[in-house]
Formats: sequence, C-alpha cells, structure tokens
Amino acid sequence: MKKIVSIGEVMLRLSPPSNERFFQTKQLELEFGGSEANVGAALAFWNNHVIHLTAFPDHELGLAATATLRRNGIDTSFIQHYPGRLGVYFLEQGAMHRSSKIIYDRAGSAFTKIDMKTFDWDKILDKVDALHWSGITPALSQECADFTFHALKEANKRGITIFGDLNYRSNLWNFGKKPHEIMPELLSFTNVMIASTRDFNNCLNEQYQNFESAKSHVFERFPNLKYITKTNRESVSSSHNKISASLISKENEYFSREYDLTHIVDRVGTGDAFAGGLIHGLLHHDPQYAIEFGMAAGALKHSVPGDVLLCSKEEIEEIVAGEAIGKIKR
Amino acid sequence: MKKIVSIGEVMLRLSPPSNERFFQTKQLELEFGGSEANVGAALAFWNNHVIHLTAFPDHELGLAATATLRRNGIDTSFIQHYPGRLGVYFLEQGAMHRSSKIIYDRAGSAFTKIDMKTFDWDKILDKVDALHWSGITPALSQECADFTFHALKEANKRGITIFGDLNYRSNLWNFGKKPHEIMPELLSFTNVMIASTRDFNNCLNEQYQNFESAKSHVFERFPNLKYITKTNRESVSSSHNKISASLISKENEYFSREYDLTHIVDRVGTGDAFAGGLIHGLLHHDPQYAIEFGMAAGALKHSVPGDVLLCSKEEIEEIVAGEAIGKIKR
Amino acid sequence: MKKIVSIGEVMLRLSPPSNERFFQTKQLELEFGGSEANVGAALAFWNNHVIHLTAFPDHELGLAATATLRRNGIDTSFIQHYPGRLGVYFLEQGAMHRSSKIIYDRAGSAFTKIDMKTFDWDKILDKVDALHWSGITPALSQECADFTFHALKEANKRGITIFGDLNYRSNLWNFGKKPHEIMPELLSFTNVMIASTRDFNNCLNEQYQNFESAKSHVFERFPNLKYITKTNRESVSSSHNKISASLISKENEYFSREYDLTHIVDRVGTGDAFAGGLIHGLLHHDPQYAIEFGMAAGALKHSVPGDVLLCSKEEIEEIVAGEAIGKIKR
Amino acid sequence: MKKIVSIGEVMLRLSPPSNERFFQTKQLELEFGGSEANVGAALAFWNNHVIHLTAFPDHELGLAATATLRRNGIDTSFIQHYPGRLGVYFLEQGAMHRSSKIIYDRAGSAFTKIDMKTFDWDKILDKVDALHWSGITPALSQECADFTFHALKEANKRGITIFGDLNYRSNLWNFGKKPHEIMPELLSFTNVMIASTRDFNNCLNEQYQNFESAKSHVFERFPNLKYITKTNRESVSSSHNKISASLISKENEYFSREYDLTHIVDRVGTGDAFAGGLIHGLLHHDPQYAIEFGMAAGALKHSVPGDVLLCSKEEIEEIVAGEAIGKIKR
Amino acid sequence: MKKIVSIGEVMLRLSPPSNERFFQTKQLELEFGGSEANVGAALAFWNNHVIHLTAFPDHELGLAATATLRRNGIDTSFIQHYPGRLGVYFLEQGAMHRSSKIIYDRAGSAFTKIDMKTFDWDKILDKVDALHWSGITPALSQECADFTFHALKEANKRGITIFGDLNYRSNLWNFGKKPHEIMPELLSFTNVMIASTRDFNNCLNEQYQNFESAKSHVFERFPNLKYITKTNRESVSSSHNKISASLISKENEYFSREYDLTHIVDRVGTGDAFAGGLIHGLLHHDPQYAIEFGMAAGALKHSVPGDVLLCSKEEIEEIVAGEAIGKIKR
Amino acid sequence: MKKIVSIGEVMLRLSPPSNERFFQTKQLELEFGGSEANVGAALAFWNNHVIHLTAFPDHELGLAATATLRRNGIDTSFIQHYPGRLGVYFLEQGAMHRSSKIIYDRAGSAFTKIDMKTFDWDKILDKVDALHWSGITPALSQECADFTFHALKEANKRGITIFGDLNYRSNLWNFGKKPHEIMPELLSFTNVMIASTRDFNNCLNEQYQNFESAKSHVFERFPNLKYITKTNRESVSSSHNKISASLISKENEYFSREYDLTHIVDRVGTGDAFAGGLIHGLLHHDPQYAIEFGMAAGALKHSVPGDVLLCSKEEIEEIVAGEAIGKIKR
Ligand SMILES: [Ca+2]
Ligand SMILES: [Ca+2]
Ligand SMILES: [Ca+2]
Ligand SMILES: [Ca+2]
Ligand SMILES: [Ca+2]
Ligand SMILES: [Ca+2]
Ligand SMILES: [Ca+2]
Ligand SMILES: [Ca+2]
Ligand SMILES: [Ca+2]
Ligand SMILES: [Ca+2]
Ligand SMILES: [Ca+2]
Ligand SMILES: [Ca+2]
Ligand code: NI
Ligand code: NI
Ligand code: NI
Ligand code: NI
Ligand code: NI
Ligand code: NI
Ligand code: NI
Ligand code: NI
Ligand code: NI
Ligand code: NI
Ligand code: NI
Ligand code: NI
Ligand code: NI
Ligand code: NI
Ligand code: NI
Ligand code: NI
Ligand code: NI
Ligand code: NI
Repeated sequence: MKKIVSIGEVMLRLSPPSNERFFQTKQLELEFGGSEANVGAALAFWNNHVIHLTAFPDHELGLAATATLRRNGIDTSFIQHYPGRLGVYFLEQGAMHRSSKIIYDRAGSAFTKIDMKTFDWDKILDKVDALHWSGITPALSQECADFTFHALKEANKRGITIFGDLNYRSNLWNFGKKPHEIMPELLSFTNVMIASTRDFNNCLNEQYQNFESAKSHVFERFPNLKYITKTNRESVSSSHNKISASLISKENEYFSREYDLTHIVDRVGTGDAFAGGLIHGLLHHDPQYAIEFGMAAGALKHSVPGDVLLCSKEEIEEIVAGEAIGKIKR
Repeated sequence: MKKIVSIGEVMLRLSPPSNERFFQTKQLELEFGGSEANVGAALAFWNNHVIHLTAFPDHELGLAATATLRRNGIDTSFIQHYPGRLGVYFLEQGAMHRSSKIIYDRAGSAFTKIDMKTFDWDKILDKVDALHWSGITPALSQECADFTFHALKEANKRGITIFGDLNYRSNLWNFGKKPHEIMPELLSFTNVMIASTRDFNNCLNEQYQNFESAKSHVFERFPNLKYITKTNRESVSSSHNKISASLISKENEYFSREYDLTHIVDRVGTGDAFAGGLIHGLLHHDPQYAIEFGMAAGALKHSVPGDVLLCSKEEIEEIVAGEAIGKIKR
Repeated sequence: MKKIVSIGEVMLRLSPPSNERFFQTKQLELEFGGSEANVGAALAFWNNHVIHLTAFPDHELGLAATATLRRNGIDTSFIQHYPGRLGVYFLEQGAMHRSSKIIYDRAGSAFTKIDMKTFDWDKILDKVDALHWSGITPALSQECADFTFHALKEANKRGITIFGDLNYRSNLWNFGKKPHEIMPELLSFTNVMIASTRDFNNCLNEQYQNFESAKSHVFERFPNLKYITKTNRESVSSSHNKISASLISKENEYFSREYDLTHIVDRVGTGDAFAGGLIHGLLHHDPQYAIEFGMAAGALKHSVPGDVLLCSKEEIEEIVAGEAIGKIKR
Repeated sequence: MKKIVSIGEVMLRLSPPSNERFFQTKQLELEFGGSEANVGAALAFWNNHVIHLTAFPDHELGLAATATLRRNGIDTSFIQHYPGRLGVYFLEQGAMHRSSKIIYDRAGSAFTKIDMKTFDWDKILDKVDALHWSGITPALSQECADFTFHALKEANKRGITIFGDLNYRSNLWNFGKKPHEIMPELLSFTNVMIASTRDFNNCLNEQYQNFESAKSHVFERFPNLKYITKTNRESVSSSHNKISASLISKENEYFSREYDLTHIVDRVGTGDAFAGGLIHGLLHHDPQYAIEFGMAAGALKHSVPGDVLLCSKEEIEEIVAGEAIGKIKR
Repeated sequence: MKKIVSIGEVMLRLSPPSNERFFQTKQLELEFGGSEANVGAALAFWNNHVIHLTAFPDHELGLAATATLRRNGIDTSFIQHYPGRLGVYFLEQGAMHRSSKIIYDRAGSAFTKIDMKTFDWDKILDKVDALHWSGITPALSQECADFTFHALKEANKRGITIFGDLNYRSNLWNFGKKPHEIMPELLSFTNVMIASTRDFNNCLNEQYQNFESAKSHVFERFPNLKYITKTNRESVSSSHNKISASLISKENEYFSREYDLTHIVDRVGTGDAFAGGLIHGLLHHDPQYAIEFGMAAGALKHSVPGDVLLCSKEEIEEIVAGEAIGKIKR
Repeated sequence: MKKIVSIGEVMLRLSPPSNERFFQTKQLELEFGGSEANVGAALAFWNNHVIHLTAFPDHELGLAATATLRRNGIDTSFIQHYPGRLGVYFLEQGAMHRSSKIIYDRAGSAFTKIDMKTFDWDKILDKVDALHWSGITPALSQECADFTFHALKEANKRGITIFGDLNYRSNLWNFGKKPHEIMPELLSFTNVMIASTRDFNNCLNEQYQNFESAKSHVFERFPNLKYITKTNRESVSSSHNKISASLISKENEYFSREYDLTHIVDRVGTGDAFAGGLIHGLLHHDPQYAIEFGMAAGALKHSVPGDVLLCSKEEIEEIVAGEAIGKIKR
C-alpha cells in the first residue's frame, strides 16, 4: 500500500440514459467526475491511501460530491468547501458513427478560486509516495496554476515521485496566460509524464514533427523526467476502438499489448484508469508490468458506466494474465 | 384569442425523482422553466398567441429549451441564440415538514447578456394585446434591466396592456443597482401588478406597514396602475397548503374562494399558473371571473409535475364552476 | 374454495408514471385490466377457482394478456385467441383537484367478435358456484350481447348464482341496440346486482326518482333478484374519497362502515375489488360480513397500483376486524 | 433554406425499454412517428421550413402528437383534429439474431378519414419548393388515396418538385382498391422516387426481373420522373447491417459509400432519414453529394433512439467528409 | 463535535418502487440499513465523529455496504470483512390502510459470527464520548451477545456514556438464550435507554402493568440508568401517523411536542433518527432541547426515502424552532 | 404436445440495470430463475405441458415466484410452500473484457428441505413423456439428493425418457457427500445427458483425458444412456461468444452449425434454452433437427433479458432454416 496525493477539479457529470441525445432526453444520470480524482479513485480501489485535494461549493451538491469521493475510498479530509458554484459537464454518449458530445459548464466554479495558502502541506504530504496532477488544472485560473505549482514544488522538495498527464485542451486557458508560460516549470518537477507530440508542442510552444524528436528534446530539457508514456487509440466508431500504449525511458521502450474494444459502454475516464494503473504498476512493480497493468485498467474501464474504473486489482491482473476474459464467475 | 408577449429567462430545471434528496439521488429529471415563460405557456395552452422573448446559448441544450417552449405552443420566432451558458436551477422537492430547496446556478447565463437593440419591436409588438414581465428580469444584469425597460416602453407606447409580477428576490440584484433605482420606472408602465407589501417595500424603498397603506400610495404614485393582485398562502407543510387571492382596483376588491390543497405534487410554477389565469381572465372576462380563473389555475398547477400548468381551459372552468373535482372522466 | 366464472373484456392499460399528464409523458406503464377479470383476479387471489371467459388477439400482446391473467391465478383454459386487435385504455391518474382521465380505444377489438357458439358450456360450467358479469359487455357489440345472454341462460339453467354489476356507460352502446332492449332479460337471470338509481333508469328505461322506489319496483319485476348493492362515494378530491356501501334484500339492509380514504394511490378497479369481496363474502359468509368484506377489499384497492387488488384474505380480514391499520408487519 | 410539404399519418409508437420482449415488459416508451413526418423532421432539423399535413384525434394524445411534431421544428399550422382514434404501432426492437417485431394497430384512425376538401392548397403550397409523399398513405383508405392524389396534382400544377417513397406494404391495401389502380397516377406526378424492383412490380402490376429492366420501363412510362433511388441493406443480424444506395437518372448512376453498421441502436426510421438527406441534398447540392448526404443521414439514424434522426447538418457533413467518426467532441 | 461508537448489523434493504407490492414488482430499490448504523449516520451528518462496528461478507455487496456507510460520513476503519452472506431485508412500503411488510432474510449472516476478540478496544474507544447499541444485536447469536456485552463493558470501564434502544423483537432470539438471560447485564451498563413497557417486560421477564411501575423498578434495579425515553405513535394509516416522546429521569419528565404526520414517505428508520437526535441533543444540549431535537429528527425522517435521515442540523433546528415548515428555500 | 416434468430450485435473481456494477447500483431488476425451470419454461412456451416440481417459502416472494412460473405457462399445481427462505442469486452482467459475476446466496433455502414423500408420484407422472433434472439439485442437500433419486427412479419405472444436465459445480456439494457417491446412480437412470469431460470426471471420480475416452466408457457403464450432448463455447469477450454443439450416440454424431454471437444481451440461461430445444427436438423430431433446434434456441436466448428464452417455436424454426435473421417483421 502506497500513499498518493491527487489534485484537481471534480465536476457534476450529467448524461442522458441509454443512447438518448440531449435534444430528446427527460432525465440525466448524475455522477461526479474529474480526471485526477478518477485516477485517485482507481488507486484507492486497489487499497492505496489516496488523498484528493480540491475545493467544492458549500451547498448540498458540494457535500454530495465529497461524499461520493469518500464512497470511492478517497481520503477527503483536506477538501475545502466555500461559496460558489459546482463545475458541470453534460455528457452525451456517442454510439456507432455518432461522436460523443461534452458541453462544459465549469467557468467560475469554486475550484477556480482555490487558495494554495489554505493547505497545510506538511500534514498533507507526510509519508506520501507519489503525487498526480494534470494539465487541466493550471489551465483553469491563475489561482489553479499557482496551486499546482505550489503542490509540485512542495512534493518535489520532499522527494515524492510526481506523475502528470499533460492533457492539453485548447478551449481552456482563458484566464490570460499561455500554456508555455506555466507548463514548463510544472514539467520540470515531473518524473513520469503522459503526453503526445501535440501536448508537448502546445505546452512547450514547440513544433516537434514526431514523437521521436519530442522525446529526445524533452528528456534533455527536463532532467527530472524519467518516463514518458504514449497512448494510441484508433477510433473505428464510438462503439469500437483499438488501444495500446508504451512507456518510454531515455534508454528503453516498454509496449503494452493492443486491445480490440468492441461494444464500448463508456469511454470517458479510460485515460484516467490507464494513468491510475500505470502509477500503481510503477509504484509496486517493474515498467513492463506497469504498462500492461495500466493498459488493462484502461481497457476494462470501457465496460463500466461512469467516470471511475471500479474494478479490483484481481480483475486487472486476470486481464494482464489473459485469464477470464468474458467468463461468468460464480 | 389574444396576442401576448412574455419576456424573461428560461432555465434548465433539474430535480431528483420521487422524494429523493440531492445528497442521495443518482438521477435528475430534466425540464425547462422560468417564471414568465411559464405564464406564457399557460396562456398558449388556452389558444392565445404567445410570443416569448429570451436568449439561449447556441448549444444543444439551448436548442432543446427552444424546442420545449415551442412544444408548449409558444411562438419562439424571436428567441435569440448566442455563445454562453444556460442558467440552471436544481430543485429538491420538499415533503411533509421538510422544505423544498432550490440551488440557483444562473450567474453569467446567455440571457444576462441579452441585447435589446437586436429585437425588432415593430414586428414583435404588431397587434399585441398584452405584455407580461416580472421583477426577476431587471435584477439579473444591466442588460436585462435595459431590455425590460425598453420592452415596457415600446409596449406602453403602443397601448398594450402591461402585466407584471413584482416578485422581489433578495439573492438576485448583484449587478450593482438597487431595486428602487430601476423598478419604479418599470412599475410606472404597468397596468396590472401582482405584489405583496414586502415586494413594494423592497422595490420602492418604502416601509409600508400593511397592504392597505401600500395600496393607496401605489395607486396614487403610478396612475397607469389599474389593478393590484394579492395572493395568500398558508403553508401547513410542503404537502399541504391553503391559498386564495384578491384583485384590487382603486374602488373594488374581488376575492377568490380559498383552496385547501393536500397531497401537493409540485408547488413550483403555481404562482405563474395563477398569473396566466389572471391575464387570461382579464383579457376575456370580468374581474371577478378573472380572479377565480387565476386561482383555479394556480390550485390545479399543484397537481402537475414540472414548471408548467398543462391544463386546458375546460379543466380550469370546471374547477371555477365547482364541477368535476377529482372524478374519473371517461 | 368455490368455483366461479367471470366473463368480459380485458384491455391493455397504459398510464403515465407518477403524476404525469398524457401531454408530457415519455413512458407508459403497462398493465392488463378489465372490470370482470379484475373481480375474478381478486377471487382467485383468495384461492377460489376462477375461470375467465374472454377473447384475445393471437399476437404477442394477446399472449401477454393471457399470461398475466394466469399469473394472477385465473384459469385461462377457455380463453380464445383469434385475429384482431387488443382493446386499449389510456389512463391518466388524477391528483388533488385534477380528475383522472381515461381515453378508451377499444372499438373493434377481438373481444367484440366473440362467438358464443365456440364455448363448451357443459365443460365450463361444470360444478360452478357463481358467475359474474357486468353491463359493459352487452354494450360492446351484438356478439357480446348474445354471448352474455347465452352465458347467463346456461348458468341459470344449472342453478348457478349469478352476480352482476350493472355499470351503465353512455359512451358505449354504439352497435345499434338500446340498453333496455337487452338489459332486462339479463337482469332477469341475475341474483345479486350492484347498481345505482341511474343505472336502473338507463338500463330499464325508467325514471325512478330515488333508490327506494327503484328498489321496490326492481325486486318486483325480477323475482330472481335476491340482493341489490348500492355504493356511495364522496369525492373530496382525486386524492381523497369517502366510501361506504349497503347490501339490500327485500326485507333487510346491511350497511358497511364508511372509509375515509386519503393519499389515494390508484382508484381504478376499486369497484371491482368491492364486487370480488362481496361475492366472496356471500359465497362463504353471511350478508353483514359480506358487505364489510367487500367494502374493506374496495378500500384497500385504493392503495395498490394497477387494476387488480392483490391483497390476501388475511389482509382484508384484518381491516374488517379493525386490526393492523397502517402498521409495519415483520 | 427551402420550403417543403410532407404528408402522411403519424402514429403513437410504443416500445419496451432495453431489449425486453412484449411478453415480459411492464413499460412502454412513448414516441410519435410516421414515415413522411420523420422525413419532414429531419429536414426541419436542418432549418428547412417544413409543413406537415395530417389529421389527429382531438383528444390529449392527438394534442401531444401535434406538440411533438412542433417540438421537432415542423410547422403544424395545417394539421387537422377531429373525433377518432390515434393509430398505434407497437415496436419490439430486435437484437442479435432475433428480428424486430412491429404490431400495427392503425385501422380506423382519424387519419384514414382525412378530407382533402378541408385543406386550403393555395395557402399551403405558397412558395413551396418540394413535396414528399409515400406509398403508405394511398394504401390506407379511399380518403387517403384521394388526399394524396389531390396534394400531388396541386403541387405538380405549381411546379413543385415531388419526392416519393414507393414503400409497398402488402398488409395494408385493405380498403378495396389494388395498388395498380392508384399508384401509377401518383407516380406520374413524381420527380424523384425511392423504390425497389419489388415495389415497382407490386405498384404497377408488373413482373420486372431486375432493377435494370424496371428502371428503363419506368423512366419511359413516367416522363416526369428524373431520379430513381435504390437502397441496399444486408442484414447480418438485428445488431449489424451493411447499407449503401445509388441515385439513378436516365443517363447516370451516383453511388454512395457502403456503411458497416455494428452496435445498432434503433433501425426504425433509417430509411426516412435517408430520404430526408437525399431531399436536402438534391435541393441544395449536386446528385453525388445528395446520395452521400442521404446515406450518411441514414447511417447516423441507426444510433439514435426513436423514429426521428435528430442530427445536425454539421454532424451529417462530418460523416460525409469522413471526419469525426466516433470521437469525443468537447 | 463528539466521538461516538455505534455497533450493530447493517443489511441490504430491497424495496419495490412507488407503491408496488412484492407480488407485482419487477425492480427493487437497493439501500443499506440497520438500526444502529442509521443512528450513527444521523450523528455523522451533524459532524460528530462516528465509528461503526460491524462485520460484512468480503464480496462485492459487502464492499458496497462499507462504502455506503463511508459515504454517509461514518468511520469504517474498524469494520471487518470475512466469508459469509449479507443479511437482507425486503421492505414493501405500506400506503393508506395497507400495512408495510418486512420479510427478514438475515439468518446466518457474516455479522452473526462476529468475533469480539478481533477488535482492538483501546484503539476503538480512545477519546470516545458515547456508545450506542440496540436490543437487536444480542438477539442474533451467542457471538453477537458476547460482542455486545464486551463492547459495553469496555465502554463502561472507560466512563463512556452508553445509549441503548431496547427494541425487543420476538421473531429474533432463536439461538437458544432467553432475553432475560442476557439483557439485564447489558441494561446495567446503559445510561440512557429507549424502551416501552412491553420491551421491559420481555427483556427483564417482568409483567409491569404500565410504564409508571416499569420506570420506578427499572431505575431502582439499574443504578447506571439516568434517562428512559418513551415514544408514542398513533397510526391513523400507513400514510398518516401522530408521534411524540418524552425523556424521563428519576425526578423529571421532559415532553416533546406532538407531530401530525400526513403524506408519509418512508417510516422505516424514524425511530433511529429520533435516537440519533436524542443522543446529539443530550451530548450537546439540555434534556428539554434533546427530546425536542430528537423528535424533530424523527418527524423529518418520515419525509426522506431510505433508512437514513440525511437532514442537516440546521434543518432539524428550524423544525424545533417552528420556522420554515414546508417552505421553498432559495 | 408432450407432457414433461422438470425438477429443481428456482431462485430470486437480482441484477443491476444496464451495465452497472454491484458497487455502484441503486436498483436491482427482479426475475425468478433456475436451470431446470428455465428448461421447463422454454418447453411450455412451445405448448408442451410442463409440470415443475420445487418448493418455495410461503411468504409473498414465494407466491410471486410461483405466479411467475405460472405466467410462463408452467403447471405449478404440485409446487410446495412451507416456512423458510428463498434462494437468491445476485447477477452482475459482464461486458466487453469484463466477466459476469454471480454471488449465490442460496444456502438453507426452503428447497433444500424438500421432502420427496410429500409428492404423489402416480398423479404427477401420469402420461408423462419426459423428465428433466440437473446436477445442481443433488448437490444442495441430502433431501435434494433423495428427492432427485426418487423422481428418477419413479420415472424410470414408468418408462419415461429422462434428460439430465450434469452441470458439476464445485462450490455446491457442501452437505457431506461426494458427487461420485450420488451421481452414478442418477446417471444410470438417464437417457440423454448433457455433459463435458470435466463434468464426467468430477461426477464419476474419473480422469478421462478427452471426451472420446469419456464417451466410450460412459456409454458402456450406463446402458440406459442413449445420447450424450457436448456444447462448445469460445468466449471472445462477455459481449462476443461463439457456440456450437453436437449430439452423440454410440454410433453417430450430429453437429449443429456454429453461431457467431456479437452484441450479447444476457448469457444466463442460454444453456437451459439449448437443453429445452434439444428435448423438444428429440421428442418431436430426429436427432439432426434436435441438435440444430437446441442450438438455435440457445443462440436466440443470448438476445433476451432474464433467465428464460421467451421465443416461439416459429422464431426458432426460422433460425434453423436460416430465414429472417435480424429483420423487421411487420
Ligand atoms: Ca446508463
Ligand atoms: Ca452512466
Ligand atoms: Ca417526478
Ligand atoms: Ca418533476
Ligand atoms: Ca406506478
Ligand atoms: Ca399503475
Ligand atoms: Ca430506450
Ligand atoms: Ca426508444
Ligand atoms: Ca422510491
Ligand atoms: Ca426507498
Ligand atoms: Ca436489463
Ligand atoms: Ca434482466
Ligand atoms: Ni439503459
Ligand atoms: Ni447509472
Ligand atoms: Ni415516481
Ligand atoms: Ni434511488
Ligand atoms: Ni443508475
Ligand atoms: Ni417527469
Ligand atoms: Ni412511479
Ligand atoms: Ni418523466
Ligand atoms: Ni426517455
Ligand atoms: Ni407498475
Ligand atoms: Ni435502459
Ligand atoms: Ni422490466
Ligand atoms: Ni426514450
Ligand atoms: Ni416513484
Ligand atoms: Ni412497475
Ligand atoms: Ni429511491
Ligand atoms: Ni437497461
Ligand atoms: Ni428488465
């Protein structure tokens, strides 16, 4: 069992049931989700001690959000509640050739006003093994960028392994800063980074032509960086994807198997499940097992409704071992 | 059949099914509602031609909102769509001793940026008999206050009867102006006003001790004002209310009967149903019938889920006539 | 345990969930119901052997209807299936002041073509104690009127006690005959008749001013008639009724207690539950117990969704005895 | 934006949720659908002005049907309401090897009594660009056949482009006439016809051996006919189909790509979505784009529950362009 | 904020939706509930630190039960998981005259095998202010009786205030012991006891004729006992109850107001909400406020679906203060 | 039409809707199922007279179970009801790579106490053509083993064809006996046995290396055995399986076609559907048709939610004939 801190916004997720479109639905299924907390929930499900840092409004929906993280096994002791709104994302699940659609309604949420000075880092980071952040958080507001910087600096100071998911999103970054004014410093603290060529180009203001050239420059520029992770997804349709990933160090590259995923139930959060699996794998095992464990977690998430993986370590291990694919377990 | 214009914001209404609390629910029922459009929908259901003026975001939920108004019989030709968010209100229905709870999340909606200059008033107000506004709109933003002022001025200029629901809400009015800086001018255009002593005091910055003294001063100060309407509600519990109303001119007072309402299904929008009934009554009948028709509409709304009345003219008339209370009609 | 034959149409019942109106609903709850089969189902639930005679279309919904009667304990061996449609009734449950609304769509159903000659009366009526019919059936078609006449004649011939529910409905009787051309003959076979003054007037083409005068003439005219049953219902609202009943012979009148019914769940089928209870009571007990048992069954049905009572004999008996009203039984 | 008139019956569609069979279900999902109005709804969703002509009963379900067409953007001003029943179709969705099952219960609906003389053709057809009919309507009753003939004659007289979907259904045509007594005259007015060899044979009382020979004779016999459209569907299972289509003029044939459709959500209305797309394409673009736009619309409809396409022009265009297949759009 | 330990079994609660009976339902709503944990959840909702002690099976439903307690704010660190089954109770909600029905299926659950020796009492009881038990636990098995005895002895030894709910249930006590062989010793440790005359008679093997005589003997026999609490419930119907309570010391009696509860949503757990309120009141306030706070909590619980109160301290306080009964709070 | 007796336990089946996991669900769909009764229900759906022998608790859920078998067309006249619990199985449907999970909670059910002496075998087995048992029943308790032995002996004595599904389950067999102490005697009565090499090895305490050697020894050892049936299933994922089967006599082997099953809805009960189809086929047709009919029934069951096939004979026959795969039947 390891102790891990994840940081980031958790939103209200509202999605029509079955395959209904926004235009026709009369009901929305309610969940709470956010990339980094999804990672945290996967890790907590496998009995790691996970502390999530975030801020919620102090009304009933903020309480419900906290309670739901707690239900998923996350340590919510350090979550803050103050006046404001809860970020919302409306999710219409795609099917067949039809794409999924997300309408974000997160501007001005309580989280965007998070105040790094109100967190007791000594207490939070005590005996912590790893911290996980993503590129979504610093894009939301100056307060969020400051909070991320501070968390990473404090973690780095204490020798905590830092994982990041670069995850560049062009429709965020509306508070006045450019990604490359903020992200390089965050990357410089990070030890394991999930990223694509496009992520690097956008966050570092570069024009790498391919992953190969991005990789060599990035390892050079950020000496703390030990691993980069690259994921590949081919989208045959909303119901059918093929996925694989590799974990890359300066010297080696570890490949996962490829998964042919038909009959997809819920693609949202599959990257987070992968990240959670990778972190778990690297904290407890070797790199080759880590990339396989991560990818198996990511593949399994496609079968679970909601943002969160909700699969046991044993279930992932069976997939890694190639046992019990689609059986009835009694 | 009369032609009526209503103006105001329409929000996404999200509420847990059955009697569930926000804290426990996994699903939200989706409706669209807003005080003035609820009034408009009631009037449209009775075959009046109702134009509603509002602004929605140009995404899928904005389209669904427009389509739902249209389904309810409202003329949506003049509704505007532009970038922004849709106002949301989360509604937890009360039951027994437990109060209902509304969490508003409407700040910064597309509607708050409505631009009066983009409306073609000649075309909109052509042959219109009545316009309905409420005190919610001018409280939302300077743009909304300007828009209301403009609409009323244009309507007044054309001799259109103006109905208003004063509806003071203290947690609105955050854009910098005080109610009494804006409301008196709007009241000066209005011919029929639904209001309580508290509404008058807050909107006019007065300290009337009772309705009697408010009434005489208000009739004096606003010569266009022909009727004031006062509603009374006694709340035994969330499931049991008693309601009645009166319609007051300078010379007369017309009283409705009192309704003893047990087994309440949905109280939201009952004031709007009353307002719609009153407008219909005054446009087509005499004051005594109007106050009875309005109150019967308001009473019936307590039995219909959602924001909107959805009862036919014949159903209201039967209640007014004291026929067919709780029968099985085959 | 007694053996009882009920005859009549069973329709598809479709109703919006919760308190939704037809205008707004996206879902209909599906049940199967019909007055006489509802009576039969109540009797079967109390371990009487009940044969129901009807006709269904030979498609999947007709099979589902038969299967549902069978689930409710009814002997469906003699039900016929042939080409045609299934009668439908759409039910919008009322609430508070709002009435319930039924839209019948039953014209031209398979049942209206029922052929009395295809029934083996010797086999069906073997050892039967009682037969139950209602005034709905002869109103539907000439075939239905013939079928009812035949069934009653055959039952009467064999000394079987005949129960009827006169149940005059003005929007039926569209096949060319007037009620008084058909009903008197059917009444002449009947031993126990549930009826109001209005029913008698319409079915016998009389103008009785009150029940007293109807009663004395009817007992005179129909010597087979042993009991008339009168039910009283005061409708405070759709959610609140008061009911009572009496059982009247030439010499005596037996009164039930009155029930004050608030928080009504489903009023449909409550008269059928009463009829079932009355038949059970008269077949197994004395007249005073019978009217109490019937009324308790009718009262309890208001709490059960669907057309059918679904309450055990013990539950009815406890209500009759005044025990266990609204307890938690563990 | 074009102005288009569609004509035809709209029914109540009732279907069990998920994959349930009629035999087991307790709930039916309620929609309103009909082939020609489905075409109209697709066109209205893309901002064409679509008038639908039909007749509904004047009860609550007829009002709800009208309101639902209106919600979908259709101009319902000319819809008629009079006494009668609403046609119903019960739909059990197939899955895997299991076929879908439709039980029609439409005989004697209000629509079958539609009276062509009550429509003001000058007003309806003013500035109209196109009219769409299908072979279902003339099969329903003499009134329906007359109504179709009249609408087509009036449209033809005004130079309006006429689209038709021949759609021969053997279990209709019960009112006494044979298809070839009625259909040739309707075909003679039509400019673009969707049809198979089997449709032509049944409607023209011919025995064409293949589409090639049907095509040449039909173009010869009906000089107004400019295009025939042929669609191909291979059914691997209820969940997996392959579809393509071509648009054929006397001189040319334009082919769509083939779509491999796995994970089908709802096949009903996919032909109508195709027809809508084809009409839109031919009214706004060239024949090659039209057949691709139609087929993309038809393919996308398989992913949307209900009878109606509910996909934007942009979504169809992306499929035509081969972009954004099964992505998550944020 | 106080620290409180609750002990007892938590079961899977399965109940038909709406007002459906077991006989007709196709779905069961799933909750987890148990008398003592319900008390704990109410206390945790008011920011007390509540540790619940119980045992669950180590399968998925046991994990879900633990997670649900955790969601409700309960400290689940000391809950044990080992092989076995989860106790189940099937709940059919009553309505109107119809009683609620509970089918227990709890025999042989993992909890009945709980092993007191596996609990680290020093750690669990560190700084604890109060412990709550009920008479259900010692009735389940010898292991459960031993576990209760041990917990109370350890708590008593440390000066912790002990609350109990005597709650005699005749259909438990099947493991060989009589209540009076076990309960007196448990009572001797208890400081505040909720009990009726019937409870005392059954648990102490006495024949007290009324509460007055029970009270004086019990205070005499059990010197640790400081308060007895008596609750009164009049059941007009399943939908309408009247409740009140009093708190009795040797010298004084503190009475709550009476609540007239119509439109009841869910009566289960209302006694537990009362107990939670009473404990909270006595730990933080005076006896008069405590009995009012407890009764207000109990009254409010009737409006909340599920076993657990889920109402904030502020909501209870408003009821105690007589404010905000059945309002809409915005 | 044949007369068939099936024997075995029927449990309450509880499963989360859609693709939800146990951990996250708030609702369970309720069905009743058990291997042998599922076989019986399939046979009854095809108009065979099927008597099922089992025992249920005498509470409401036991009544509902009986009623549901009756709804499915099974003759429930000989089912026994006495005190006890109803066996439960919780089913989480798998999807994609994720396996299905069943939690059995059946120990100590009423069925395990079934008393063979209370059955009137002369009456039950009168004119019966076939009896079906499975290896689940004798594994449950000594009473169940005795009951099975008795039923088979009585059937064998009367020349009734005996079908069995060997179905070895290692987590049953907890009552003290080993399979090979009981199963050989049951096998010796059986004429047609569904079994795998693993089943034979476990039930006969053998170590056959392959089906070939098992087959020859088994035919030798059990002279009553006329056919063995072997089924093959390849699990690509929970949503995609391939299945086929063969029917083997001493001299011949009859092969079914292979089915490629994608988009699986519900795999549970597919083996029972196969067994039902096989029995029906062998009772009414030749062995080659029987194995095809069985496999087609098994394949179709994958598309139907619940334990039971619910497909007509005609639907199966169409699949056998290769017609109507995935069409829309109107
Ligand atoms: Ca879902
Ligand atoms: Ca979901
Ligand atoms: Ca609702
Ligand atoms: Ca609602
Ligand atoms: Ca219901
Ligand atoms: Ca119902
Ligand atoms: Ca659906
Ligand atoms: Ca649908
Ligand atoms: Ca509920
Ligand atoms: Ca509940
Ligand atoms: Ca399901
Ligand atoms: Ca199911
Ligand atoms: Ni679903
Ligand atoms: Ni869900
Ligand atoms: Ni509900
Ligand atoms: Ni729920
Ligand atoms: Ni859910
Ligand atoms: Ni609703
Ligand atoms: Ni409901
Ligand atoms: Ni709804
Ligand atoms: Ni829906
Ligand atoms: Ni229902
Ligand atoms: Ni569904
Ligand atoms: Ni269902
Ligand atoms: Ni739907
Ligand atoms: Ni409900
Ligand atoms: Ni239901
Ligand atoms: Ni619920
Ligand atoms: Ni589902
Ligand atoms: Ni279901």
